[in-house]
Amino acid sequence: MTLASSVLGGDRLALARLLTQVENDSLEGRAALAELFPHTGRAHLIGVTGAPGTGKSSLVNQLALHFRRQDDKRVAIVAVDPSSPFTGGAVLGDRVRMRDLAGDAGVFIRSMASRGSLGGLAQATASVVQVFDAAGYDIVMIETVGAGQSEVDIAGLAHTTIVVEAPGLGDDIQAIKAGILEIADILVVNKADRPGVENTERSLKSMLDLAHPSQRVFRHHGQIMSDSVQAAPRDGMIWIPPIQRTVSTEGTGIAELAGLVAKHAAHLRQSGDWASRERARLEVELDALIRETLMSRFREGVPQKQYDEIVEKVVKRNLSPWEAVKVLMNPHPGPSPRGRGESERSK
Amino acid sequence: MTLASSVLGGDRLALARLLTQVENDSLEGRAALAELFPHTGRAHLIGVTGAPGTGKSSLVNQLALHFRRQDDKRVAIVAVDPSSPFTGGAVLGDRVRMRDLAGDAGVFIRSMASRGSLGGLAQATASVVQVFDAAGYDIVMIETVGAGQSEVDIAGLAHTTIVVEAPGLGDDIQAIKAGILEIADILVVNKADRPGVENTERSLKSMLDLAHPSQRVFRHHGQIMSDSVQAAPRDGMIWIPPIQRTVSTEGTGIAELAGLVAKHAAHLRQSGDWASRERARLEVELDALIRETLMSRFREGVPQKQYDEIVEKVVKRNLSPWEAVKVLMNPHPGPSPRGRGESERSK
Repeated sequence: MTLASSVLGGDRLALARLLTQVENDSLEGRAALAELFPHTGRAHLIGVTGAPGTGKSSLVNQLALHFRRQDDKRVAIVAVDPSSPFTGGAVLGDRVRMRDLAGDAGVFIRSMASRGSLGGLAQATASVVQVFDAAGYDIVMIETVGAGQSEVDIAGLAHTTIVVEAPGLGDDIQAIKAGILEIADILVVNKADRPGVENTERSLKSMLDLAHPSQRVFRHHGQIMSDSVQAAPRDGMIWIPPIQRTVSTEGTGIAELAGLVAKHAAHLRQSGDWASRERARLEVELDALIRETLMSRFREGVPQKQYDEIVEKVVKRNLSPWEAVKVLMNPHPGPSPRGRGESERSK
Repeated sequence: MTLASSVLGGDRLALARLLTQVENDSLEGRAALAELFPHTGRAHLIGVTGAPGTGKSSLVNQLALHFRRQDDKRVAIVAVDPSSPFTGGAVLGDRVRMRDLAGDAGVFIRSMASRGSLGGLAQATASVVQVFDAAGYDIVMIETVGAGQSEVDIAGLAHTTIVVEAPGLGDDIQAIKAGILEIADILVVNKADRPGVENTERSLKSMLDLAHPSQRVFRHHGQIMSDSVQAAPRDGMIWIPPIQRTVSTEGTGIAELAGLVAKHAAHLRQSGDWASRERARLEVELDALIRETLMSRFREGVPQKQYDEIVEKVVKRNLSPWEAVKVLMNPHPGPSPRGRGESERSK
């Protein structure tokens, strides 16, 4: 019995082990992903992102509790912290979560820290999400700490993206919002019992008005895709991101937020956007895999000694980086074993 | 006369035009970069990063003014906002800056917003920095908004990285610090006239103590390199990141901070770390160029129709992403024109 089939059978320990293999991008992990892949595509993927200090983790916990208790859904939480190569922050978050969610077999929480590169982290997150999807979790929440491009990219994995704000977080939060607003399906003003909540909500509204919904673009790693190119929205099928106030520490607004999430899922299915987002998501994943594969093949083909010599020439400013790439791509003056030199010269 | 030679001759208008070409990664831009490359390697590159709300922009302005007026250095500022596909936030920042720095021919400010992909932005930033370096700017400051992995990567371009904190920015800032602290050469507690400054400084100190300097790693895109692997630090040559309080709106602590920057530059030169950071930086750039080149060659080789068919199979779960990559990499059952299919089968 493979690890993957144990996971499909509901074995929680096998799931934990498989997640580690998938995170480490081991050969076993890749084989398991291939085996699980036909079972994916059923979970509702929900991205939750926003600036530090907005109380995202607490909000995610409350939502997870709601989905469990009110809707009887199985819920996985993937907490991603791209800025930390350690799991320190994430582990702390897990402990806080344990109190409410521990011992519930219908909940699985996984923290992910940086795997050395951002691309690697996005890829590992996509794989972990696939495993949860195949394992039968109805809802997979992907929570990202921070508010940079990395978070936007990772949130791009989701069907529904929730962007969390909070009152009084300082001036240049404003600058950050523009990019994040583009990916928001639902806006949350958390800590809504704080002073300044009206200001925060008003500025979100005016920014939403600026971004006309028909021109909204759907951003992913390295690509900007207009939803309308994928599938033109049908009449009356335009989704305007609603703004929901919450006080996650008290559970206020959580039921309403869960309602909006369900409404968005229904909208995606009716409008055809669910399918177009799925396709875009899988294309991005494919693209990343192609990049990695090309690079590792390239590395196998260039001897370390030759590479070091070229770098030395660049360091001494005898060769520009672009010239170095040309030399590395066409290493042999005669035809290479793969015939690459040949095809290049004949251009 | 080429654009590049005009830039080397000090033509400010040519510089602005070349920066645009380089940002757009045009063929002219690439040719100019190759022409300018032998003239690079002289500027001191200073990265300034930190969470939103810490007052980075104002701090960067004050530092720039100091370098101009006290040290008579030519200063370029590259303001990078990876979260915004628009230049809104950046342009606002420029206007604020104009008041103090406008009309000074020894200062050049360039704002950069996202170019569609994070890798693209890091690459464009590296190129823009090279242009300023070749154009004779003594100091190039690279300012990043936000605190995610993207900012860490872009800050990795610098010789000296300044991480800016401020009191009272909320709880999960703490979690973010761990990753950022690793890349800090100098820590700044800005807005030091605010309550809570002692707490902020204390927590920074305790985190610094945890990260023993001899084990500090030097992080770049996709790679983690130990400084000691590059060049073992000589005895007494270990740099322990100092903490400097500033109130940038009043200019408090700016002279002291500029002094620390100069001290760090001297340390880098004496310890040999300047050379090892240069090498690491150029290797990262080379790596990114190789990736891009491999990907564009691959795209040229696969017909859009075939690519779309494969994606369709993945969407229908008939093919896993990994299987799709295999098919795309070996498109022909017989030997391909480049002989790739051949070499793959013979493995």
